[in-house]
Amino acid sequence: MSLIVQKFGGSSVSDAAAIHRAAARVANSRRQGHDVVVVVSAMGDTTDELLDLAAAVTDTPSARELDMLLTAGERISMSLLAMALQREGVGALSLTGMQAGLRTTATFGAARITQVDPTRLRATLDAGEIPIVAGFQGWTDAEETTTLGRGGSDTTAVALAAALEADVCEIYSDVDGMFTADPRVVPTARRIPWLRYDDALELSAHGAKILHLRAVEFARRHGVPLHVRSSFSDKPGTWVTTSRDHVPTDHLTPQEAQMEDPLIEGVAHTHDQAMLTIVNVPDVPGRAAQIFAVLSGEVSVIDMLGQTHTARENGLIDFSFALPAADAQRAREVLLTQQEALGFTDVSVTETVGKVSVSGHGVRSNPEVPARLLKALADQGITVHMFTTSESRISVVVEAPQVEASVQAIHTAFELDSDEGEAVVYGGTGR
Amino acid sequence: MSLIVQKFGGSSVSDAAAIHRAAARVANSRRQGHDVVVVVSAMGDTTDELLDLAAAVTDTPSARELDMLLTAGERISMSLLAMALQREGVGALSLTGMQAGLRTTATFGAARITQVDPTRLRATLDAGEIPIVAGFQGWTDAEETTTLGRGGSDTTAVALAAALEADVCEIYSDVDGMFTADPRVVPTARRIPWLRYDDALELSAHGAKILHLRAVEFARRHGVPLHVRSSFSDKPGTWVTTSRDHVPTDHLTPQEAQMEDPLIEGVAHTHDQAMLTIVNVPDVPGRAAQIFAVLSGEVSVIDMLGQTHTARENGLIDFSFALPAADAQRAREVLLTQQEALGFTDVSVTETVGKVSVSGHGVRSNPEVPARLLKALADQGITVHMFTTSESRISVVVEAPQVEASVQAIHTAFELDSDEGEAVVYGGTGR
Repeated sequence: MSLIVQKFGGSSVSDAAAIHRAAARVANSRRQGHDVVVVVSAMGDTTDELLDLAAAVTDTPSARELDMLLTAGERISMSLLAMALQREGVGALSLTGMQAGLRTTATFGAARITQVDPTRLRATLDAGEIPIVAGFQGWTDAEETTTLGRGGSDTTAVALAAALEADVCEIYSDVDGMFTADPRVVPTARRIPWLRYDDALELSAHGAKILHLRAVEFARRHGVPLHVRSSFSDKPGTWVTTSRDHVPTDHLTPQEAQMEDPLIEGVAHTHDQAMLTIVNVPDVPGRAAQIFAVLSGEVSVIDMLGQTHTARENGLIDFSFALPAADAQRAREVLLTQQEALGFTDVSVTETVGKVSVSGHGVRSNPEVPARLLKALADQGITVHMFTTSESRISVVVEAPQVEASVQAIHTAFELDSDEGEAVVYGGTGR
Repeated sequence: MSLIVQKFGGSSVSDAAAIHRAAARVANSRRQGHDVVVVVSAMGDTTDELLDLAAAVTDTPSARELDMLLTAGERISMSLLAMALQREGVGALSLTGMQAGLRTTATFGAARITQVDPTRLRATLDAGEIPIVAGFQGWTDAEETTTLGRGGSDTTAVALAAALEADVCEIYSDVDGMFTADPRVVPTARRIPWLRYDDALELSAHGAKILHLRAVEFARRHGVPLHVRSSFSDKPGTWVTTSRDHVPTDHLTPQEAQMEDPLIEGVAHTHDQAMLTIVNVPDVPGRAAQIFAVLSGEVSVIDMLGQTHTARENGLIDFSFALPAADAQRAREVLLTQQEALGFTDVSVTETVGKVSVSGHGVRSNPEVPARLLKALADQGITVHMFTTSESRISVVVEAPQVEASVQAIHTAFELDSDEGEAVVYGGTGR
């Protein structure tokens, strides 16, 4: 008997039928003799509907009241799932984040987990009941409800799995696992049977929305094996662990179990990116640090920082970086308020770009990887605006309309296309 | 400066416009220098929608999970109302029943308040913020969420008013106060400017759905002045207090302040009643107690118990009583299982009846009241199936289609019709 944490995303509890499907899955694990703890997201579009309600009342809701509002969503789905399990004759008890012992910082809207006290979870399991825990939410020492931010339900599941020393944390959504590329863009994308945490992190960070970055980080830190699966099928999904040895032997085919690490694991992409260039910055020591001090707190993610020109004869350089399109104009305005101090002549923003990334172990040491990637794009006539490499990832910025073609070209160039014709089920991203 | 508890029913927070209207009213009270504590119901039809969701999942939801589900409703409305107040520049803080210190028994679905610890409410007020408290919900010593049952938001408001020793508890809905009859049935019904708790109890118990019975009982026990008002107008509403002296002097007109107590306060009515008759019961001591022991726990309300015949020559009597129509068949079945022990020959059920009640001080001592009531009905050719009197109330059971005509006839007979042509606003019953 093992202890399993099962997390169901919004698409897996979107209506009564989905809730019964999730309940049947939980009940089945229970009947197989496992202890199960369930973590659940809000039903389908509930979170967006609640945000719409708030938007109808005010343009500037306080983060504290927004958290109070949004946590209603998981309260609804978890009680319905508990009812569905009870209907199947399986004891179940819904628990809020507070009741499940999930303590957080008081940063409303983006709280961080400080402690998990699994006392009540254990008592519930000991009583033979299945705890159904509200994902995404926590509780502070000052008795305030908080949320963990988007993707928080994955993080809740991993945190509970870590606290309970669960054997596995299963993440259910409406996709069959993690793929070498988004199957909607690359129909020949292959399911990845197993990934190291590092590679899953890279994929999650750069466009594979199936698994939330923060949950993977948490899982890596605590060594929680993740199993990403579809709640609509019994397909094997994707395991994320420290090593292939941590995957139950019957979960990988003999080929998969013996397969060499691929050159790259997958191709991820994001739209809604912008590219910002600070033009003619005096090339003096510490200037880059000054620039990023100005942007700190104003921009959510600065990615792919590049110094695109070495200092010209006039001693001036350009700084470029990619950032979420939503932050671009704000970043530009903030920089312009400091134009005199920073000494640049202009800030240019290109808002219609996207980012394509490849990640995997081959990137770290193999100079063939960037060469093959750039050739694949050049062969398609695709212009690369920016290009950065890190230890385990290469990213390029391309024009937005060329993102899909870039993903396809790279996917083929690295021989990731499936030759099995595996039926791919992909219906959107889970939450 | 006084301390006011303001309770807004579902119709008063049914959408963004209503929420802003409620917020404006709260902000206005605050600007007049009062301390305000707000209690709020779920928006409009939210509770029914949540019940529909549960019904789609199971026919037999556990009371505990149903409470978890339903409390999402107030969580939504209270956070939105707090946002609306903040938008008006008024500090506000939404609080769950738990956060507001409302402790209850563990009877899910019908919990009773055991204690109110107003520490956090007072701290919030001291910080210059308006607490927006979720009505209808509480928290047990075992850290479980409970609900107080239907009408529970009124009870929450009164309980908080009692604990805070508030000067008044204002109950806002979409009606202008309590009337001498339902203005939808009797267009000439008059607003009652002031009522004693006892009379409000009678009216609430027997069909005036504006104010919940239990809240009135709680208010009477703790001497909390109630002020029933519309959130859609500034009309004076209805005060419910121990004596007329407890109503602020500027809230009654000179006539109202000096008016003699009327013979009766009002005419209430309920549909959805049934009449059950147990036929040919041996007239032996203790048999009635046996009958009601059998029904105890099976029937929610037994009303108007009557022994409709004195013992006939054969030593047999009939017992009749009124009860909610929804309970009638169940009550009949339970009785039939004990037919041998109880010795009756049959149980007959008439499901299409309604009840009309008059209440007021005149009923207690004035034999003219029943006479005038019965004559009014007889003049209209309305048959009375049952008739009971108590110290402060007379009720009759009539055929369901004759309920409205009965109310109108009685209202006129007791000279309750308005001669002022007051514009009556009545848009359904608040929750």
